[in-house]
Amino acid sequence: MIEVKGFEIKSGLTAGELVASFSSLGFQASELAKAVSVIRSMRKDKATIFLSFTSNMVSSGLRELFAQMCRDKLVDVVVTSIGSVEEDLMKTKAPFFLGDFNADDAELHKKEINRIGNVFVPTARYVELEKMLKPFFLKELNKQKEKGRLLSPSEVIRDLGETIEDENSFLYWCFKNNIPVFCPAPTDGAFGLQLFFFKQDHAEFGIDVTGDMKSLSDLVLNAEKTGGIILGGGFAKHHVIGMNLVRGGLDYAVYVCTASEYDGSLSGARTKEAVSWGKINEKAKTAFVDCDATIALPLILAGLKD
Amino acid sequence: MIEVKGFEIKSGLTAGELVASFSSLGFQASELAKAVSVIRSMRKDKATIFLSFTSNMVSSGLRELFAQMCRDKLVDVVVTSIGSVEEDLMKTKAPFFLGDFNADDAELHKKEINRIGNVFVPTARYVELEKMLKPFFLKELNKQKEKGRLLSPSEVIRDLGETIEDENSFLYWCFKNNIPVFCPAPTDGAFGLQLFFFKQDHAEFGIDVTGDMKSLSDLVLNAEKTGGIILGGGFAKHHVIGMNLVRGGLDYAVYVCTASEYDGSLSGARTKEAVSWGKINEKAKTAFVDCDATIALPLILAGLKD
Amino acid sequence: MIEVKGFEIKSGLTAGELVASFSSLGFQASELAKAVSVIRSMRKDKATIFLSFTSNMVSSGLRELFAQMCRDKLVDVVVTSIGSVEEDLMKTKAPFFLGDFNADDAELHKKEINRIGNVFVPTARYVELEKMLKPFFLKELNKQKEKGRLLSPSEVIRDLGETIEDENSFLYWCFKNNIPVFCPAPTDGAFGLQLFFFKQDHAEFGIDVTGDMKSLSDLVLNAEKTGGIILGGGFAKHHVIGMNLVRGGLDYAVYVCTASEYDGSLSGARTKEAVSWGKINEKAKTAFVDCDATIALPLILAGLKD
Amino acid sequence: MIEVKGFEIKSGLTAGELVASFSSLGFQASELAKAVSVIRSMRKDKATIFLSFTSNMVSSGLRELFAQMCRDKLVDVVVTSIGSVEEDLMKTKAPFFLGDFNADDAELHKKEINRIGNVFVPTARYVELEKMLKPFFLKELNKQKEKGRLLSPSEVIRDLGETIEDENSFLYWCFKNNIPVFCPAPTDGAFGLQLFFFKQDHAEFGIDVTGDMKSLSDLVLNAEKTGGIILGGGFAKHHVIGMNLVRGGLDYAVYVCTASEYDGSLSGARTKEAVSWGKINEKAKTAFVDCDATIALPLILAGLKD
Repeated sequence: MIEVKGFEIKSGLTAGELVASFSSLGFQASELAKAVSVIRSMRKDKATIFLSFTSNMVSSGLRELFAQMCRDKLVDVVVTSIGSVEEDLMKTKAPFFLGDFNADDAELHKKEINRIGNVFVPTARYVELEKMLKPFFLKELNKQKEKGRLLSPSEVIRDLGETIEDENSFLYWCFKNNIPVFCPAPTDGAFGLQLFFFKQDHAEFGIDVTGDMKSLSDLVLNAEKTGGIILGGGFAKHHVIGMNLVRGGLDYAVYVCTASEYDGSLSGARTKEAVSWGKINEKAKTAFVDCDATIALPLILAGLKD
Repeated sequence: MIEVKGFEIKSGLTAGELVASFSSLGFQASELAKAVSVIRSMRKDKATIFLSFTSNMVSSGLRELFAQMCRDKLVDVVVTSIGSVEEDLMKTKAPFFLGDFNADDAELHKKEINRIGNVFVPTARYVELEKMLKPFFLKELNKQKEKGRLLSPSEVIRDLGETIEDENSFLYWCFKNNIPVFCPAPTDGAFGLQLFFFKQDHAEFGIDVTGDMKSLSDLVLNAEKTGGIILGGGFAKHHVIGMNLVRGGLDYAVYVCTASEYDGSLSGARTKEAVSWGKINEKAKTAFVDCDATIALPLILAGLKD
Repeated sequence: MIEVKGFEIKSGLTAGELVASFSSLGFQASELAKAVSVIRSMRKDKATIFLSFTSNMVSSGLRELFAQMCRDKLVDVVVTSIGSVEEDLMKTKAPFFLGDFNADDAELHKKEINRIGNVFVPTARYVELEKMLKPFFLKELNKQKEKGRLLSPSEVIRDLGETIEDENSFLYWCFKNNIPVFCPAPTDGAFGLQLFFFKQDHAEFGIDVTGDMKSLSDLVLNAEKTGGIILGGGFAKHHVIGMNLVRGGLDYAVYVCTASEYDGSLSGARTKEAVSWGKINEKAKTAFVDCDATIALPLILAGLKD
Repeated sequence: MIEVKGFEIKSGLTAGELVASFSSLGFQASELAKAVSVIRSMRKDKATIFLSFTSNMVSSGLRELFAQMCRDKLVDVVVTSIGSVEEDLMKTKAPFFLGDFNADDAELHKKEINRIGNVFVPTARYVELEKMLKPFFLKELNKQKEKGRLLSPSEVIRDLGETIEDENSFLYWCFKNNIPVFCPAPTDGAFGLQLFFFKQDHAEFGIDVTGDMKSLSDLVLNAEKTGGIILGGGFAKHHVIGMNLVRGGLDYAVYVCTASEYDGSLSGARTKEAVSWGKINEKAKTAFVDCDATIALPLILAGLKD
């Protein structure tokens, strides 16, 4: 049995050493150290690794960390919400700012600042988004016509990634490294709103969400082993574990999550619940870290480095 | 100023009286009483009312309460995840069971029982689902061919509602009462999996998620006033508030939610955050109840009765 | 197995009927119904019932519900923090008010209003408290001198209850009905501050916290069966379960709690953790309700009525 | 305005650099970076620094970090629960072990293992505790007789620290460095239970909790500036902020906390609530980090190093 024990916090301690020391601290520190160890195992075992996250994480500075993960091919597949896609794109032009959770929201509205927790997004960013998406949608419409069928979300997102020249963008690296980005709800968010405006003039443009199912299931079925790095909840989380049902469940799963279990929500469900479904294999190595991802993910990545 | 004060809990006290008394209790009880009052105002003001919820609520007995809300035309529009649709359908054949949060999940998996919090779903339910969806998808494929275009999620869900003969089903009442059910991510969940199996033989079948955007925006833009009853988080929540941006925000909003604000997630965002975006109007009447919906919703509905 | 199923929300439905119907709803509704059933069993079994709560609940309108529970002898022992004692006393003179979680706290400070969540307490209430406690402490000092020993917290609180003429006060009913009120940290809170001011002139006045241990343990050891109704966390919670260790654990336990388990805190610990310690018997009937007590307690009490 | 932006996670990155980079990440990462900056300001300003924590943190490996903080005189005053005191003492003899949140608690009980989250404490540790406390209480009883008055909690705890020879003990360093340890509820916990057993034979032994109030208030009143590092909730948190009321509030405050605000609990109250009371000065520098302390505290200390 591992003894619970603290460690000396010395000047010059590396972040990797710190995280390694977490394994003997107990509570969420030990879970975080376990998350690093489970991801190490996924990689050693050459598992196909699925990364899911929610759009607020892209609003935060985790966007650049996702870019690194995709640049370094730490993951093989990304599943996320359309908000992540639009914000990654918006940030290629201009940044978001650090704000305040307790800001006066009516005041912010007058100043054309939109709040996401303590992150401030000027409305001007959405004007830029519109400028980028309009010609892009036109190009995609042409492609739709050429192909004689609606495109799938991952095709559209891949094409979008191709337009990006920004090494801090995860879409850029997903395109470069052939990492598919699945998004089963592409009409939500500002992207969806722009899509709607575009359709006013081009009613024939559409997106067939069923078009991604075969490629996603092929990834799952063709893998020797699969692992999930699942940050936050929502359908991005479910899409990863749900599809892994067809192969008897994920072999490795790390959840980083702040939601609660008591309301039966998928977002708050622990890894063990997924075992009952066969979405995570009963022999899988798993870790569950209850912590805001802006703290947990940098630590996990640092832990993997050393 | 309202005095904070308890009340006598008498035998025979009606649920409506209880909820009315909550207004002077403080903390979440007073927020719950406020939720009732905000919904009363929506109705008095003849607002177009949007209801959003997550699928775990349909797993619970709230399904039958959603059915009542739709039967009684308390709401005009439903936005939810595809899990809600499939479970509403599954329950027309056989029930789910009350289980235990702390059950042994590997054991459950062997017994072919799937766990959602403390709700148990026999795998047999999914076999039934497959039997119902296969012929349904064939019918929808024919309709697609007739129309010469892919169907939208709300069209498919409406057609599904038409097949149901169960007064405890919300899809049944949505069909009867012409309440559109929007679901921007129809390929998630078991429904999505069945869709995928069906497409193996019928590759031409698809769903165009952009097909619902005009009808949803028309509902928002044509309304004199709009109100949201938003249970839980995820894209269902965002879809309601996000679309209301185009009209200057919801005029009334009730959130019932268990997620936290500190991680900047949309699921945990309070009503005030949406004001910065113009997704909720700065003059809107709002209430935020931090409580599991299985407790909060019956109380709110009882409060509306009396 | 119990089928998960909703129920008709009818006009005139009693609160007791509502709570009874919760048993088939799943998630926290079913836990709440179980809490009622566990308390019914405690009473049927004539268990000595311990009630613990935190002071914020007395800030809210639950104070009057605690008074009813003590009036009706639903409980035999109370364990709470000194804040509960001082606020119960303060409310005998003038009420607290319903405020706003998002109030401007610097502004409130200028207006001499103190905030507890969405409950506002005018500073004037503390001036009143001082007026009441000064002569009371003098009386207690005399008693200390007569007895030739320091008084224990429960003796002091009992004497305070004797001075109260207010049927909405739980201290009043505890005195009337001989229900001891244990408070192992009497120097915290405004009560403690007043105690400190009093001691400036009367250095000899003291409180011996060890003085209550025998009477508390006698209550535990002499009981045929024990039950705990444990609202919130903190030392009040621990004091109840901790003392029950000496008899092999509580036979019945209901926790109503909003704290999380993941940080290893006692406040967030579930009933099962206490089983490992023998603080709750492994055969005990237990329920755990994750819900704000301002909503849960009125429902539980209503459920017990019918 | 600070741009929200991620950073390169490189091999060899120090923990201090990592934490410095958190300032531009948003959400809780930026709050954690702010916590470091607020503590830096406290120290620069030579504020009297109060540290409060709950006993579960001592159960975890944070115990050794508290010892370092006291060894390095990072803090001037400690306020905690008696569980922290007893576990610090117990760990001088033998360690606790890393366990599992989902362990079978009835099984653990049979094996005489007590669970605190995912930390396992063999019952044998409590047998050791008894052996240490019995002679210690006898010594304290003699001291009580000599002084002709009951001792205060901080006197007893100081004497206990004097008996310890373990550089990993915070009590050891508090004694060495003259850092008072206040504990307003010394009869809770296993310490309290042992006190109770001791009193069976030595009824005259007692602890006067009012005995610490003057020394605590002197510390507050004589300070030029005060700062609070407040980990977790409960009375330890309140005791620090409550006493600072007498000087117009803390000048600096860092809360690390996992509790929620919505139930009006002191444990979940944010720093701004304390401003309404004057427990934190309205001009104070504050940070609020919603994160398990086992993750947050090592990061904060590492951030302070570099």
